[in-house]
Amino acid sequence: MRKVTYGAAVSLDGFITDADEALDWLRWTDDVRKITADSWKGVDAMLMGRKTWEFAVRQGGGGGRGGPSGMTTYIFSTTMTEAPEGAELVREDAVGFVRALKEAPGGDIILMGGGELAAALIAGGTVDEIGLNVHPLLLGGGVPMFPAVGGRTPLKLIEARSIASDCVLLRYEVAASA
Amino acid sequence: MRKVTYGAAVSLDGFITDADEALDWLRWTDDVRKITADSWKGVDAMLMGRKTWEFAVRQGGGGGRGGPSGMTTYIFSTTMTEAPEGAELVREDAVGFVRALKEAPGGDIILMGGGELAAALIAGGTVDEIGLNVHPLLLGGGVPMFPAVGGRTPLKLIEARSIASDCVLLRYEVAASA
Repeated sequence: MRKVTYGAAVSLDGFITDADEALDWLRWTDDVRKITADSWKGVDAMLMGRKTWEFAVRQGGGGGRGGPSGMTTYIFSTTMTEAPEGAELVREDAVGFVRALKEAPGGDIILMGGGELAAALIAGGTVDEIGLNVHPLLLGGGVPMFPAVGGRTPLKLIEARSIASDCVLLRYEVAASA
Repeated sequence: MRKVTYGAAVSLDGFITDADEALDWLRWTDDVRKITADSWKGVDAMLMGRKTWEFAVRQGGGGGRGGPSGMTTYIFSTTMTEAPEGAELVREDAVGFVRALKEAPGGDIILMGGGELAAALIAGGTVDEIGLNVHPLLLGGGVPMFPAVGGRTPLKLIEARSIASDCVLLRYEVAASA
């Protein structure tokens, strides 16, 4: 079954962008370059919510940034009516869609930041791994990596180590994914 | 100058209790016992907000739990009119009070969980160190260790290591405390 990983760079207080969507606090080091490259190996699909997609476009990236060619980008939205160029639009139930996607043939899947979709997919038991690059600051507000959705999710620690620039890499297996 | 440390056990999504105030998810291991004992060495004062005090009382602890005798407990509240038994009541501005307390003679100071007071003191530049024992689960809601108060606080990583039971110890120096 295809593995779904939710990964993000995050402040110690759990935000993936600040209140103004600024990302200037991100520390882009050789460590991060290597970890990012490793995490994309074997991946051929990306999942993101509409807001993350629009954020990526505003940042000048678009959905395919960072990924190799041959990547399929799925945008989850109930309000968009047409798929953006280079992406597929998913208007149906996210958990059901991802559950089916994991059963279909293909490589691994990365779930991009934007807490709402991630929260729904974690709660739905479809996320297998969570990776955080914890940055050494408090942002004091912004988009949370894990919105408060109620309900516990047990995790199993895979890896915890400090990397360059006072960042800490944390990787967890989601105990009850399927 | 006396050092102020804000420490807490926290879920990966940043909560120090769940929405029902449950703490049954805490993993109390020999590692934690040793780390806790070490962190109390040289400490002779505790700071906490009214809600944390009341929570501690409901948990059957009271303010002095965990600390050695000779500990002074300061409860910060603008609504309490009388100091609870065994504690001092601080009704004045928290940042100014703690700034003066740090200049006074005495040992180190521990700031107990309950994000509101901590957030004010961190924003006010009076917290020197932050320690987290990150537990391997998402709680999905509850009392956040770091409420979103706006404004960035730069940190410097002191220590990051995995301890027993899939927990991760993170310690940071607050870059601009005074």
